[in-house]
Formats: sequence, structure tokens, C-alpha cells
Amino acid sequence: MSEPLPSWNDGPTREAMLAFVESVSDESDPGYVPPVERVAVFDNDGTLWCEKPMPIELGFILARLAQMAEQDEALRGRQPWKAAYERDDAWLGGVVTKHYHGDDSDVKVLIGGIVQAFAGTTVEEYATSAHAFLSENDHPTLGRRLADCGYRPMVELLRHLEANGFACYIVSGGDRDFMRPVTSEIYGVPSERVVGSSSALRYREDENGGSVVYEAAMDFFDDGPIKPVRIWSRIGRRPILACGNSNGDMQMLRYAGGPRPALRLLVSHDDADREFAYTAGAEHALESADAEGWTVISVKNDWSGVFADVTA
Amino acid sequence: MSEPLPSWNDGPTREAMLAFVESVSDESDPGYVPPVERVAVFDNDGTLWCEKPMPIELGFILARLAQMAEQDEALRGRQPWKAAYERDDAWLGGVVTKHYHGDDSDVKVLIGGIVQAFAGTTVEEYATSAHAFLSENDHPTLGRRLADCGYRPMVELLRHLEANGFACYIVSGGDRDFMRPVTSEIYGVPSERVVGSSSALRYREDENGGSVVYEAAMDFFDDGPIKPVRIWSRIGRRPILACGNSNGDMQMLRYAGGPRPALRLLVSHDDADREFAYTAGAEHALESADAEGWTVISVKNDWSGVFADVTA
Repeated sequence: MSEPLPSWNDGPTREAMLAFVESVSDESDPGYVPPVERVAVFDNDGTLWCEKPMPIELGFILARLAQMAEQDEALRGRQPWKAAYERDDAWLGGVVTKHYHGDDSDVKVLIGGIVQAFAGTTVEEYATSAHAFLSENDHPTLGRRLADCGYRPMVELLRHLEANGFACYIVSGGDRDFMRPVTSEIYGVPSERVVGSSSALRYREDENGGSVVYEAAMDFFDDGPIKPVRIWSRIGRRPILACGNSNGDMQMLRYAGGPRPALRLLVSHDDADREFAYTAGAEHALESADAEGWTVISVKNDWSGVFADVTA
Repeated sequence: MSEPLPSWNDGPTREAMLAFVESVSDESDPGYVPPVERVAVFDNDGTLWCEKPMPIELGFILARLAQMAEQDEALRGRQPWKAAYERDDAWLGGVVTKHYHGDDSDVKVLIGGIVQAFAGTTVEEYATSAHAFLSENDHPTLGRRLADCGYRPMVELLRHLEANGFACYIVSGGDRDFMRPVTSEIYGVPSERVVGSSSALRYREDENGGSVVYEAAMDFFDDGPIKPVRIWSRIGRRPILACGNSNGDMQMLRYAGGPRPALRLLVSHDDADREFAYTAGAEHALESADAEGWTVISVKNDWSGVFADVTA
């Protein structure tokens, strides 16, 4: 078998991951965990793929909102259509930053637009549209397709975990159904293992077995304390490995393991040359890492390559 | 390999199941379906296990409500504690029958009690309690443990489907977390493949990684048109096989397949000698079966044995 985690530099982070996986997989080890209990959960934006200069999903939503504003002049004076139509990146960037600082007023305005943007759409139509957006559009600065913005070292970690009996789930604040059409090809994670935010859904009868369609309302926003709740709802087990990168992942990281050992990983974006360097929205998580016993992954120091299609 | 479905009598029902599984598994067949899309969904009460003389979960809830009424005299005059304390089976049986006929007034009263019965309980405490109830108590008339009330022919069908690449899910109106502690041992279905109703959940921080606890409110009732919605939320695929037994399964049966072929199965309880004979709550489903193209499973004619521990 080839050496696991080839895009990870030798050092304490890589060693901690290898040692944990070896411990839980070894029946003679006191840390042994039966395969059925080896559940690992990963945030998506900023953990499995790039979230700068803005979350990838936001680009998808803005394209749809701009399209709506083109078709309906009355929407051009209202947020969030106004910002989408005028490509007002300042307003939009502020939404995420304010959210990370606990101010969700603009998030609510944006969500108000999002839920109207796709109301009445079937889940299949939305999936086709999301897949096309991610496959056909490039990242604004990185010179690669959006679907190629997954982090290669993280994909290797997913594979190494699976090879050792783990079931890996994505538990993201992003929209569940936006990710699902590409998680198999990018991460090897199937749709039933994708947990995320969602609009409310409704079953609409028709002569072809009916369809599931989106309603003009959020069902839940899978962030912060909602992450452990959604993990239980979907999986019915407490994970033994969790990995995130922001303040919204802190409860998920704490929940992993509970009374027993767990590996909790926090990605630190400190590499402006190969990706982006930022701490906004992750300050509390980074400050707490030492005291909480979380292992910090430095993009700069721990990863020999960053993106999936980098062969260097 | 031994012959599949040994507890099924030869006949059109068994043949339809074997033919469908063979068709979707055979790459040279026009009905071939790739393994990742072979999703099968099963109702639980009355489909995978016995639901008479009352749903098994109801016994669990009543025991808890009676215990609450014993500890608090004021509850003894209020429904549903009154019925639980006085063992008023008439009131209780009426709840389910009325629900099947579209009258949910008593269901709401009962749910009002249920959500209070477990508010503040952690999901682990509840799981321990449900597991003990099902393992330690006998069915009121069948002379077997509640955990032995699963239908052997259905367990064989689950195994046959899995052996042919299917992922089998339970999609029940019953409480998701009540079933999960026993679905692995009874059906071989793990907790992440159990979809059902649920109380609202909350993450409660503590020094051991926090806990997920129940709130005094329902989150959703997984029945009728909610079943397709929950199937999408949890699985992200449209099933190609669905099996139910009551009016509350009709939308799930219709949803299976959609524009492409699917096997839709409806269990008809027509065997008073070995189990129970009843149509209450299933009238519309049974009447619609022919026109909808659903295959009716007759307990009396199609099953050579009924329960998992019957060796005759």
C-alpha cells in the first residue's frame, strides 16, 4: 500500500492524525473503537474547499438574484437583489463577516432573497443548476474551476479514514443540496452523507410520482450549536473525529468524542501565497484551540500541495 | 448461495420481487440501475414489525406517562396521562384509528404528552430506555419479546436487496430515536438509515463535550406527504423500491421511481391466525393498489412464516 497522506508534510499534525487512526483501528489498543462507531465529520467551506474571496455558494445565489433583477426592475432597488445586480461586493462581503461576529441582520436579508430565488424549484432542477455552476465556472482568482477548489490534503485524509473503517460526513453551514451534486466527484462523499442548511421542502403531487420542491422559507441553518443537533438527527452517533475552520464549528468540535478520546482538527488559513490568509470569523476558534486540545492544521506548514489538481 | 426469500411462498409476489431485483442488477437489462441509485425505503409499523393491538412505541410512551402520573397526582385528570394511568385502551386505540381517518385532534393531545414526557432527556438516555423497553417486555398477545416482533420475510427481503447492492432505509411515522437502538439487531439497518418522526432537539453545553437533548416540542411527523420530503432530506435520492402498509405510505409509494420503473409494495394484514387481520387505516391504500400498480403482499398467502424466531 502506498504511503497515506502524501500531500501532508511530516510533523506533529500529520503524526497526530496517523496515530489517532492507528489507535482506534487496532483491537489491541486501549483506544480501539469498533468500525461502526468510527464517524468523522467535516465542515465544508474553508475546511474541505476554498471559501475566499467569498463562499462559493454565494456566487451561485448572486447569479440567480441578478438574473431575477434583470427580469424584474422592481427588485433592483431592494437588497439582496440590488447588491447582486450592481455586483456590490462590499455589501456582500460584509454579510459573512458580520455573521461571524454575531450580527445576522444582513444574513436574514440575504436569506430572504435566497429562499425566494428557488421557491417552487424541484430538487432535481436545483441539483442540475448547482452542478452546472460548479463545473462550468472558474474561481475568481485561483485560475481553476470552482469544482477544483477542494483541498487535496483533505481529500487524502477522507480516503485514509475510509480505508480504516471510518464513515465520513460533511456537516456544513452551506446549503446541503448545493453541495450534494458534486461531493461524490470532489470528495468521494455520497449525498446521504452530506449534512447542511436547507430551505423548507414540500411534496407536490403530479402524474409522475410527484416531486419535492423548495418553499420560500428556511428550514434550518446548520451552524454553531445546530451542527451537533443535525449530526445526531442524521447519523444517530457522536463522532470521534471532527474538523472545521471557523467559530461556527466550535460546538461540533466540542461534541466530537464527548467522554471518550477524539481527534479535533482546526484548519488555519495562513498561506497568502498558495491560497488566502485570514482569521476573520475564526478568531474564537483559533484562540480556544490550545485550551480545548484541538490540533491546528497550518495550510502553510502542513500541506505540501493545496489543491486537488496540483501535481507538484 | 442459498435460495433467497425462503419464508416467501412461490407466487406472483415473490416472483415480482425477484424479477425486479434481477432486472436492476443486470447491466445488460434495459431496467439496469447503477448500485449507488438502488435505494429502498420501508415503513416500520405494520410493514417491518407488528403494530397490533397498538403500535409498540405507544406502549413505551404510556409506561412513561403512567410513571409521571404516579409521581404527580395533578396529571391523573388530564389526557393523555389519564388514559395511561387508567390503562384506558379504548381512548388510546381511538387515537390511531382517528388519525388514519384524517382526524388528528387526539394525536395532538397525545403528542402534547409525549413531548413533555422526554423533554430535557439526552438522546443517549432515551436510547438506553427504548432499548431496555423493547428487549425486556413481551408483546401483549403474541407470546414473544417486543424486539422479536419483526417480520422474518421482510428481514429476508432486506438482506436480498443488500446482497444486490441496495441501500435499505426505514422511513417510519414512528419516532426515529425509539427505533434506532434496535434496528441493527432486528433488521440489520444502522441508525444513519433510520428516518422517522422526531421531537425538536437542542445542543446543551457541558464540560464533557455537550449533549443533544429533547425539547418539549415536535420537530416533524414523518407521515403522508412528509415521507418523500424526509427521504430527500436524508438520502438525496428518489428510491426505486418502496414498501408500506397504510394510507400514510401512499405518497412514499407514489414517489418511488418517479418517471422510471420502481417496485412498490403494500403489506395487507389478512392473517388473523398467525398475526392480526385488519384494514383500518389502510383502506385507501388497498383500494388504490391495483390502479397505482402496487404489488400487494398478503401475509396469509405470501408468507410461509411470519416472525423472526419462528423456525417452522
